[in-house]
Amino acid sequence: MTLDKNWFTEMDEATGTALSLRLGEHVHGEQTPVQRIDIYRTETFGYLMTIDGCTMVTTRDNFLYHEMMAHPVLNAHPAPKRVAIVGGGDCGTLNEVLKHPEVESAVQIEIDERVTRLSEQYFPELCERNGDPRAELFFGDGLQWMRDVAPGSLDVVIVDSTDPVGPAEGLFGPRFYGDVLRALGPDGLLVHQSESPLLHQALIGAMHRAMREAGFAQTHLLHFPQPIYPSGWWSASMACKHARPIGERLDERAIAALDTRYYNAATHRAAFALPNYLRETLDVL
Amino acid sequence: MTLDKNWFTEMDEATGTALSLRLGEHVHGEQTPVQRIDIYRTETFGYLMTIDGCTMVTTRDNFLYHEMMAHPVLNAHPAPKRVAIVGGGDCGTLNEVLKHPEVESAVQIEIDERVTRLSEQYFPELCERNGDPRAELFFGDGLQWMRDVAPGSLDVVIVDSTDPVGPAEGLFGPRFYGDVLRALGPDGLLVHQSESPLLHQALIGAMHRAMREAGFAQTHLLHFPQPIYPSGWWSASMACKHARPIGERLDERAIAALDTRYYNAATHRAAFALPNYLRETLDVL
Repeated sequence: MTLDKNWFTEMDEATGTALSLRLGEHVHGEQTPVQRIDIYRTETFGYLMTIDGCTMVTTRDNFLYHEMMAHPVLNAHPAPKRVAIVGGGDCGTLNEVLKHPEVESAVQIEIDERVTRLSEQYFPELCERNGDPRAELFFGDGLQWMRDVAPGSLDVVIVDSTDPVGPAEGLFGPRFYGDVLRALGPDGLLVHQSESPLLHQALIGAMHRAMREAGFAQTHLLHFPQPIYPSGWWSASMACKHARPIGERLDERAIAALDTRYYNAATHRAAFALPNYLRETLDVL
Repeated sequence: MTLDKNWFTEMDEATGTALSLRLGEHVHGEQTPVQRIDIYRTETFGYLMTIDGCTMVTTRDNFLYHEMMAHPVLNAHPAPKRVAIVGGGDCGTLNEVLKHPEVESAVQIEIDERVTRLSEQYFPELCERNGDPRAELFFGDGLQWMRDVAPGSLDVVIVDSTDPVGPAEGLFGPRFYGDVLRALGPDGLLVHQSESPLLHQALIGAMHRAMREAGFAQTHLLHFPQPIYPSGWWSASMACKHARPIGERLDERAIAALDTRYYNAATHRAAFALPNYLRETLDVL
């Protein structure tokens, strides 16, 4: 079976897999100083944004990723007032973060302003809270921003980055995680998207080791469905400055008020359910 | 990006999605009286069996599906002695079922013997327990088998079918579910693979309604990752003859003895965690 030009295909050479979505039309394409961005209208997933040929976000299924990048870590922190999002230029994670009334400030540090401007145009539902007085959209280098930020000035850092190649590569190492640790207060939590639990076990293991090497006291893996990413199954890795058991701050009513489509108390716990075969990856034996 | 002939692609017209795996070579192909079967060697997923062009099973990721079709339902039944598997010709579900020492008999009713013979050749690890004295491999029509079986003679029925088109279509309706209900004892449980929670919500809703219409007292949705199926996220629907809360029979030690790669007490509960947007699909409001 071959796919004609009415399909967008992301071919992942390293894992020998490819995902295709039927188009629709190519509605926008540009080369920014950082990367190539394209927007397609798909037949069944709404709009699709790709960066350097990799699927980033679709209208239909982005709620899974954005909710699971934002709510578990904010629920696990006892008082998440000051939040920074590194990457996340489509503003979907920021939008979920700002649903929490406890959050007093949320800064999004995106290296490519064009990602945000195109998201405002094609994914306005993700940008609904960009005008919230608690939100700050900063465009620049997340590595440098994290080096410069005042020690202890953040409660939660969410790294909503692209894959560990190109501009995002430096975000996956112990030096950056060390800068995050310094920026966090004593209850501070870091969460970083960590690719597929089936296809990228080596990367996940390396990230957890780097987080602990940087000085984080414990790390945890979260996993959740994300159909447009390789394998359709995605993960985020959470690191805690403290060694205490991680709790759940939100009661049922507070969770219901988030008005989420995937996230609730049950899917929160489901995300932390570690499959047997990943215990070795994380040195949890 | 276009894929050349070194990729196998399953194009799902209805959902506008396609998944591809890099080959490898085509190692076997035949038209049986029932369907077209092909076997490929892939570069990163081991062997791949397809039926009528749809991915069925790969060496690398079948453990997710087979463990989640077998263990949650067997754990939820208080005494699962007599098990029937409708479909499941690759024997992977049967293999997991037979790991439970409480199971006294397990019959697999597969319509196409060639599926099983090719699985023995290319997926021998799934057929390791085919010689177990408790196992029976029956080749014939599951609809007829279920009409003929003695009332109350089964504890658990697992429907490990292909998609609801072609030979499997009749398995997705209230008449077949009524025959299953009659075949089950008073604590009886049915589980049936129910496609993607993202892409096939209408089907899932119809299956749950058909199960209740047939007389089952309650239904539940399980979900789990399955990378080679559309969206990479799959589900199974469980129906109970009784109205009591469903329990967990197995303790930690019994679960560890199953020697599973995905399944454990945590992922058991994770599978039942219902995302908000599916509550309406299941009329759980």
